[in-house]
Amino acid sequence: MNRHDHRQADELRPISFIPHIAPNATASVLASFGNTRVICAVTIEEDVPRWMKVQKVEGGWLSAEYSMLPYSTLDRKRRDITSGKLDGRSSEIQRLIGRSLRAAVDLSKIGQRTVWIDCDVLQADGGTRTASISGASVALAMALNKLVAEGKLAEMPMKQLVAAISVGMLEGTPLLDLCYVEDRDADVDMNVVMTEGGQFVEVQGSGEEAVFTADEMAAMLALAGKGIRELNALQREAIAAADRPAAEDLSALQALFAR
Amino acid sequence: MNRHDHRQADELRPISFIPHIAPNATASVLASFGNTRVICAVTIEEDVPRWMKVQKVEGGWLSAEYSMLPYSTLDRKRRDITSGKLDGRSSEIQRLIGRSLRAAVDLSKIGQRTVWIDCDVLQADGGTRTASISGASVALAMALNKLVAEGKLAEMPMKQLVAAISVGMLEGTPLLDLCYVEDRDADVDMNVVMTEGGQFVEVQGSGEEAVFTADEMAAMLALAGKGIRELNALQREAIAAADRPAAEDLSALQALFAR
Amino acid sequence: MNRHDHRQADELRPISFIPHIAPNATASVLASFGNTRVICAVTIEEDVPRWMKVQKVEGGWLSAEYSMLPYSTLDRKRRDITSGKLDGRSSEIQRLIGRSLRAAVDLSKIGQRTVWIDCDVLQADGGTRTASISGASVALAMALNKLVAEGKLAEMPMKQLVAAISVGMLEGTPLLDLCYVEDRDADVDMNVVMTEGGQFVEVQGSGEEAVFTADEMAAMLALAGKGIRELNALQREAIAAADRPAAEDLSALQALFAR
Amino acid sequence: MNRHDHRQADELRPISFIPHIAPNATASVLASFGNTRVICAVTIEEDVPRWMKVQKVEGGWLSAEYSMLPYSTLDRKRRDITSGKLDGRSSEIQRLIGRSLRAAVDLSKIGQRTVWIDCDVLQADGGTRTASISGASVALAMALNKLVAEGKLAEMPMKQLVAAISVGMLEGTPLLDLCYVEDRDADVDMNVVMTEGGQFVEVQGSGEEAVFTADEMAAMLALAGKGIRELNALQREAIAAADRPAAEDLSALQALFAR
Amino acid sequence: MNRHDHRQADELRPISFIPHIAPNATASVLASFGNTRVICAVTIEEDVPRWMKVQKVEGGWLSAEYSMLPYSTLDRKRRDITSGKLDGRSSEIQRLIGRSLRAAVDLSKIGQRTVWIDCDVLQADGGTRTASISGASVALAMALNKLVAEGKLAEMPMKQLVAAISVGMLEGTPLLDLCYVEDRDADVDMNVVMTEGGQFVEVQGSGEEAVFTADEMAAMLALAGKGIRELNALQREAIAAADRPAAEDLSALQALFAR
Amino acid sequence: MNRHDHRQADELRPISFIPHIAPNATASVLASFGNTRVICAVTIEEDVPRWMKVQKVEGGWLSAEYSMLPYSTLDRKRRDITSGKLDGRSSEIQRLIGRSLRAAVDLSKIGQRTVWIDCDVLQADGGTRTASISGASVALAMALNKLVAEGKLAEMPMKQLVAAISVGMLEGTPLLDLCYVEDRDADVDMNVVMTEGGQFVEVQGSGEEAVFTADEMAAMLALAGKGIRELNALQREAIAAADRPAAEDLSALQALFAR
Repeated sequence: MNRHDHRQADELRPISFIPHIAPNATASVLASFGNTRVICAVTIEEDVPRWMKVQKVEGGWLSAEYSMLPYSTLDRKRRDITSGKLDGRSSEIQRLIGRSLRAAVDLSKIGQRTVWIDCDVLQADGGTRTASISGASVALAMALNKLVAEGKLAEMPMKQLVAAISVGMLEGTPLLDLCYVEDRDADVDMNVVMTEGGQFVEVQGSGEEAVFTADEMAAMLALAGKGIRELNALQREAIAAADRPAAEDLSALQALFAR
Repeated sequence: MNRHDHRQADELRPISFIPHIAPNATASVLASFGNTRVICAVTIEEDVPRWMKVQKVEGGWLSAEYSMLPYSTLDRKRRDITSGKLDGRSSEIQRLIGRSLRAAVDLSKIGQRTVWIDCDVLQADGGTRTASISGASVALAMALNKLVAEGKLAEMPMKQLVAAISVGMLEGTPLLDLCYVEDRDADVDMNVVMTEGGQFVEVQGSGEEAVFTADEMAAMLALAGKGIRELNALQREAIAAADRPAAEDLSALQALFAR
Repeated sequence: MNRHDHRQADELRPISFIPHIAPNATASVLASFGNTRVICAVTIEEDVPRWMKVQKVEGGWLSAEYSMLPYSTLDRKRRDITSGKLDGRSSEIQRLIGRSLRAAVDLSKIGQRTVWIDCDVLQADGGTRTASISGASVALAMALNKLVAEGKLAEMPMKQLVAAISVGMLEGTPLLDLCYVEDRDADVDMNVVMTEGGQFVEVQGSGEEAVFTADEMAAMLALAGKGIRELNALQREAIAAADRPAAEDLSALQALFAR
Repeated sequence: MNRHDHRQADELRPISFIPHIAPNATASVLASFGNTRVICAVTIEEDVPRWMKVQKVEGGWLSAEYSMLPYSTLDRKRRDITSGKLDGRSSEIQRLIGRSLRAAVDLSKIGQRTVWIDCDVLQADGGTRTASISGASVALAMALNKLVAEGKLAEMPMKQLVAAISVGMLEGTPLLDLCYVEDRDADVDMNVVMTEGGQFVEVQGSGEEAVFTADEMAAMLALAGKGIRELNALQREAIAAADRPAAEDLSALQALFAR
Repeated sequence: MNRHDHRQADELRPISFIPHIAPNATASVLASFGNTRVICAVTIEEDVPRWMKVQKVEGGWLSAEYSMLPYSTLDRKRRDITSGKLDGRSSEIQRLIGRSLRAAVDLSKIGQRTVWIDCDVLQADGGTRTASISGASVALAMALNKLVAEGKLAEMPMKQLVAAISVGMLEGTPLLDLCYVEDRDADVDMNVVMTEGGQFVEVQGSGEEAVFTADEMAAMLALAGKGIRELNALQREAIAAADRPAAEDLSALQALFAR
Repeated sequence: MNRHDHRQADELRPISFIPHIAPNATASVLASFGNTRVICAVTIEEDVPRWMKVQKVEGGWLSAEYSMLPYSTLDRKRRDITSGKLDGRSSEIQRLIGRSLRAAVDLSKIGQRTVWIDCDVLQADGGTRTASISGASVALAMALNKLVAEGKLAEMPMKQLVAAISVGMLEGTPLLDLCYVEDRDADVDMNVVMTEGGQFVEVQGSGEEAVFTADEMAAMLALAGKGIRELNALQREAIAAADRPAAEDLSALQALFAR
């Protein structure tokens, strides 16, 4: 089948992780999966949540928050504060991001600290949760490297990078990394979070009105595995380049602000 | 391995679906999966949500709400209204219940109606979301049969029963239908929603701090399939018995109120 | 006058208090006044509210919460959390339940504990507040007996059973225990809470658009006294039977789930 | 027994109803029962609530709101908006005020209008709800007289004045019109709302931790009846004087601002 | 130009500060600027906000709250608690009142106390924020004098009186102390807060849809200075008279309740 | 005096307006005033607020929302949705932005449309409200030019560019464009919004604990005028360059992501 943007069925959109978008965070990345762009910021607070103190839990905690900026969608999205409550979808996504990133880091080794992961969608074109997890993983590695470099941590507490990608069934074909239009039309939508080692962290597949077979699921999972391996390589590259002078990222920046 | 309640690894807990727990609903069921008990009520309203009218969408809608009653847990759970907001976990579960049940019914064939699915947990011992989905599916069939019997619907708009079950990995063994203690200790927790026809509706697997392999996932999915087939048989039985005199359910009732 | 359900003017509806509906509570009862059914659960927490600690008040506290489940009414009732606030009527009723039950127990003798009374209406047909108070009184006695049996309390801190009943004036006749239709049509609606010793705990009479005379009030109070005495006998019976095997309650269970 | 302020057991505190405290309301009164002072304002809106239009109910509606100003108590009371919810006691009182005033007026004769009753406590010393109801009744008569005078209503739709007073049992003696200290120490606290014709509109008696007998109730109701008759005379006087020049109220004003 | 109420362009409306409107406050004043009337109450709490304790800040704090009573406007204004949130305009005004009054007092000299300023508008006819600040300044002086008199403070911690007035441009003429109609029609609306010493505390000028020149601003500021000096004299008079018997204020009271 | 960043007293920080940061908005700009960076997005909705329809007001509306992203400050700022209410400062700033931008555009000439101005602070170092207004003015011009180009508007409805700058008194010297540290230490902080034509739109000066003289105010206003003129030139340049290929902005982009 012909994809909307001429990609192969097993091809990722152009991916980039541009660091330092929010300089007051401990580390930050602007993650782009095609036209989906998410600000992923990691802020490390020298305190733990009250429940950890009450229950005398050792180590630290990691908490994630996700939000779509009102101008990230073609029709302006009302801010949560206007309706007075976090919408159910955002709540579900930020819980997923939190669980995924907690699988990436050994919280018993970060000291009495809280790691805040903030993912704010600047532009939405499908896959905002997978861009959030993949970008947050890069920013988290950068932030923890910084704490090690500053001597605040003796060793790197990150166990493994995690990345996430969406897969789906569209007109009988399994597709990788769905954009908004594909996501809307797909019969099945599955989000897969995996480690660099090829293990699953989370699998969430939903047919909503349609259903899917075991064979279709196997095909989608294989495709996701391929995408995750490619993402891992790009993540590693971005982490390695985090301290490089900005000038070297010029082509990524140009692409970002192209019009 | 020895399970806490002497079950085989692939054995369901005692399951029952006692109808008519809430007589003012269109249909209702008290679903029990061992010590987990959920009131599943279906109320059919002769109106559709405002967004359907605005967008001129044909047919009806199905919406689900999930809540844990404060005395369902050993430590009393504060009501949502006390904190003023629905907690994230409940929001996530009710969205899952809604998607699962919408896969079971052809909404274009229910007329301008809203089907409300309410799941209130009376006693929580693991698997409240799977008991909710499985019980709500029974109550939904009963409610729609009633509308057909009353002549409000020309034909049954339910496409298929859905059922849900949890599976997990505990000490290297895949287990079916985890109770609370097993769920807490498991390395992986997966909830699977399937149709009678053996197709997937939703798959949600999470390792949180652990991760899992493709082989483990395959083993868990196979186990889930077995459990779902057994649940479907019990669901069919409950639907068939819905109009039988109550006296015939005595043994289930006795079991329910045993102390 | 002929009552809707053929009762005498001074006759209660069929009343039952079936224990153990919510096994994770300290004690629980499903209270039925005809078609009105309320889950009454008592949970005892080993802590006191913050204000008692701040003000250094000795003893314990008792707090009540009341809610109508969405499917308890013929037209589905929106959950409080959906509108974001407790509705005024529920707030008023839970304050009444709390005051009534605090009159039943000597809080200085329960230790540093909080007694939570939760009343959730499963089916509403008039008199939900009187069924709540009467059922909660049974569950409270069961819960406190349990604490005495477990050696947590040296003596029973319950001073007296309390029970509640509604009375009203309909077409000039005083009626006992109004069902929904009678309540809606009555000129006066009065809720009376009394002790076993025949003393008043609360009297709330309202004419809303109508008014009532001192003679009518006297007649209604006399009727309420009769009803309360009958309720007390049924409450005593339920408390005595709380530890009996479930099988002996079969006729009550059959009646409950009859259709 | 000796009352705190040397009153007889059956004696009201000094009562006044000073009109025109809030000139932008349709009518307003500053009601004083001793040191309890409540701003009672009536605003008539030329519209009815949405539910009346939806249900096509004829006539108008009357709605009441009650609030304690933060400086009305010796310890400053936090505003409702700070905690984000109306406290239970205020909600209960405003429902009582609304029911009481709806008994005073024939809503089918006020046209498609909403009567707003606002009661804001300026100084609290016991009996704020009775001062609210009694003062609001005066302001309501003034407001409806104004509509008749302006030709907006053909005839006066007010059926009868209502007034309210508190009674209680303190050390075995029934007392009329309790101030805060008496109210706090009383064994029983009863609020009675009656019409000019001597009929009951609402009776709310509560023993909280104590209980009370039928004889005590009879004594309290008799006392309330006496107080209400005296209040009615003062209400009539205030309504008659509503259009008199202010100068004639000087002694009341002086008393009000005395220090 | 001819002003609506025949005032000169540089003339204040009739101003009064009647003390003791809310006797349970530490001090209170009913401030009137023509038909605008605001209850200004000062309550001094023997505690400081949590953040001061956490940050170990010495001295005390001053916090202001502003609200329009529902009957203060010709069309009834919905209470904040009904919509569940403080409206933006009220929030902005109470922040302005707080900043203005904090400039008046040396918070390091009031001990570990919180000064609460509450301004509730009884009648709104333009300039409610300026009447609030000017009246609150009088009540604050009275309250702090009281603490000095009671020996709770060694010396008066108030540095200077502050007062506020509005000025605006209407049809090219600078006007002092705008009433509602003038405010609505003015091209520019400016609120000026100054000290007795003639220094600025706050200047807030807004053209909204119009704009204004530097010359117009200079003219408006000069006018404001004149008004503030006159207000200061009236404030001083009110503070001096605060302990005088009420009888001497009769003409002000008569004016207040005139109809 | 020596400024923290070696600027002259009357010198702006490095200013840039990089377009197209949020491509799904009608127009957007990343406005930087030194280390303060704000995403300014304009979204034009083809509808007007309900109140305009009810009151039958012609033309369109412009509404602004302002928020600080949680990682914009060195200590992470809790999201508004977490506390459930918009904080007072944000509410005040977004009202200021709205009024300022409404002065820039003739709303009667934009048709039945709502212009949404969203300002989200990415990095906060003082002057976030002035960067917001100045950047939003650029984005608004771009968005309205686009509507004219698309033929949706016959002529450009923007009357004039507006810009905003802060000025303050620090150790007796008037300073332009305060960074966070200067703002914290300044005795007076003034925000000035002006048009290209040199007229005032808003002036907000506050001494909080300090006060200021008329001379100081004059000096600050003169300084603000100089800053605004320089900003206007930069704004015009950015608007002109909005359609230029991105490559030409490389130096600005490099500066932005420099580390």
